[in-house]
Amino acid sequence: MTRGPLSGVKVLDLTAVVVGPSCTLTLAEQGAEVIKLEAPEGDLLRRLGGPAPSPDMSPKFIHFNRGKRSIAVDLKSEAGRAVLARLAAQADVLVTNMRGAALARLGITWEALRPRNPRLVLCVIAGFGSRGRYHDSPAYDTIIQGMSGFAAALGKVTGEPRYAPFVLCDHITGIIASQAITAALYARERSGEGQAIEVPMYESMAHFVLTEHMFRRTFDPEGPTGDPRVMNPDAKPIPTADGYIAVSANTDAQAFAFFDCIGRPELKTDPRFDSVAARFRNVDAYFTLRAEALRARPTAEWATIFRRADIPAMPFATIDALLDDPHLREVGLLRQEVHPTEGAMTGLGRPVTFSAAGPDELPLAPRLSADARAVLAGAGYTAAEIEALLGRGVSAPPQG
Amino acid sequence: MTRGPLSGVKVLDLTAVVVGPSCTLTLAEQGAEVIKLEAPEGDLLRRLGGPAPSPDMSPKFIHFNRGKRSIAVDLKSEAGRAVLARLAAQADVLVTNMRGAALARLGITWEALRPRNPRLVLCVIAGFGSRGRYHDSPAYDTIIQGMSGFAAALGKVTGEPRYAPFVLCDHITGIIASQAITAALYARERSGEGQAIEVPMYESMAHFVLTEHMFRRTFDPEGPTGDPRVMNPDAKPIPTADGYIAVSANTDAQAFAFFDCIGRPELKTDPRFDSVAARFRNVDAYFTLRAEALRARPTAEWATIFRRADIPAMPFATIDALLDDPHLREVGLLRQEVHPTEGAMTGLGRPVTFSAAGPDELPLAPRLSADARAVLAGAGYTAAEIEALLGRGVSAPPQG
Repeated sequence: MTRGPLSGVKVLDLTAVVVGPSCTLTLAEQGAEVIKLEAPEGDLLRRLGGPAPSPDMSPKFIHFNRGKRSIAVDLKSEAGRAVLARLAAQADVLVTNMRGAALARLGITWEALRPRNPRLVLCVIAGFGSRGRYHDSPAYDTIIQGMSGFAAALGKVTGEPRYAPFVLCDHITGIIASQAITAALYARERSGEGQAIEVPMYESMAHFVLTEHMFRRTFDPEGPTGDPRVMNPDAKPIPTADGYIAVSANTDAQAFAFFDCIGRPELKTDPRFDSVAARFRNVDAYFTLRAEALRARPTAEWATIFRRADIPAMPFATIDALLDDPHLREVGLLRQEVHPTEGAMTGLGRPVTFSAAGPDELPLAPRLSADARAVLAGAGYTAAEIEALLGRGVSAPPQG
Repeated sequence: MTRGPLSGVKVLDLTAVVVGPSCTLTLAEQGAEVIKLEAPEGDLLRRLGGPAPSPDMSPKFIHFNRGKRSIAVDLKSEAGRAVLARLAAQADVLVTNMRGAALARLGITWEALRPRNPRLVLCVIAGFGSRGRYHDSPAYDTIIQGMSGFAAALGKVTGEPRYAPFVLCDHITGIIASQAITAALYARERSGEGQAIEVPMYESMAHFVLTEHMFRRTFDPEGPTGDPRVMNPDAKPIPTADGYIAVSANTDAQAFAFFDCIGRPELKTDPRFDSVAARFRNVDAYFTLRAEALRARPTAEWATIFRRADIPAMPFATIDALLDDPHLREVGLLRQEVHPTEGAMTGLGRPVTFSAAGPDELPLAPRLSADARAVLAGAGYTAAEIEALLGRGVSAPPQG
């Protein structure tokens, strides 16, 4: 049993906020050793992600940085850049979401890094791909939500463009980057060589949106964009007598069983609803009749009725209800833990299970520079050199 | 140059609709050979994903199944299950989103497959993890949106629980599964052994939601869930004189430059807005003043002003505008192609670039069973055996 499929992989993480930390969280959860190199003031998310017992350990920071080690390094100093160079020479993966000018200044380019470490996988998470006109424009999550069609799609159903209430494009692009890095590691085991990867947020999210919603503009002659089935303004959990329920009756068998459950068996032969294609054409009417029927009983009663009829349905949950779901404790996703400085807390486990890996027992998120001495020692600095670097402020001493 | 980091990887794809095809699309884009084993009637998404020149080549199907080969096999027949067994014995990866009973019936379990193919990576995309009480309950995207907090988060900002206008949880879980598979392939190159992976949609999406929104319920004593910064009902592209613009002024430098651009320099020293923490506390007032200011000029004018001031900002785009963005053509994400049966169409390229891979030149999505003969020949069937299987309806003959 290993700690996970990426056991033994050393990741140098020069990212902040969400897009990069989402990427390296996945790598850490799967056993990689992630060294988070932070600016002396720390990842912005430490303070931007909500209040916590310590001012720099926001809950969002805590959840996105589990299982990582932290060292704060002043990359404005020559000695700080030397620390970076040593760590990069030893790493299997270097991942960053800095922009081009900063990367060039720090020597984080494939041309500069490859000669010293030809097995390195260098992953640059960019706002925009380098072959296009927006290359090196600044990008944040909401910018990409606004440009990539996410805000537009929400606007279609709510009447006004709006952002999804998540750092959605950062979060998804981070996962995409973790996959690309892992693929390059696989390729390295075959070829012996590392490579440079570019993961552009805008293109990644445009791909996400357009697979679903290019729709009839795919073809010539063109039709409208936007899949009306998922863009229906009534695509909502359905109100019951006491709450909401999520029901999905897609196949004929499910839809016909649903008509029986709501006491409308005649709909099974109604030409508006008697096939997948018919229900697709009459999706408004289908959604309306569902909403009318379900008001009659409370959620738990409908859930039982639908379970017996093998119709996919589950009660709608608020985020608070989600935290109280016993299933998530049973599978180890939610767990009671004690953070060294933040005290009792609820932590998040790895959602994916691997038969060749033991249970994930990751340490909790680090205080700023908590691992400075150990990381510097691992990079080959002597004890005296380490204290000198800390004393001169090149690296911040451990906090907390 | 290879076709991508996963060149040479053989994937047997027993998935349908979105969650599995999203997973294997990523693998195909990176060079894996994906054999899509479909039921004789074909993947439901062929007809459920919108109209196309051919009735079974919906645009959503086309975009999620690029670069894959198709063979239709009747797994209800013994000869069909024998085809499955041969393909599974040769595969590097077998990925499925079938439920437990169907998998057991077909012999798709780690215990059954491992003896014949110990290097196999078996990935089961499940609704719910097998250690929890919901194990083997049916799950569809909207069910998971309703349970996992996505619908709840949208409800917080729109006033009523609703689903995101995407097959969002399927789509994201598919990407997560592609990462997990790739990690297991990496581990196999180190250990020599395959393994079984379980990717549960509910846990994957609960993890996605709770990293962002567990918020103050993380700690003891608990506070409320939900990050108010991203859950602000005014987190929207901002209306201008003629459209909308997405602006993200997060750091002090960006916010102060923004105040200058809108002619309100005095706000830089206003205690409500003079630091990241202050703007976070007064996010409603901050969003309101932004909205009031931007109505004064058209989008293009603001975009120029903000670009000069290095404030991240881009025009809001509809999905139609996205398809007209020249950047996406320059980077190869959008491309004019000709499908053998669907004619001229717009295809989607791979958003991620790998320095050791050539350009992605994937074939377009296959007609149902288009590759039946080639796949059966690759599995070791003779020409006579192949025609017998096709003649008896065990495998459908190629269409289109």
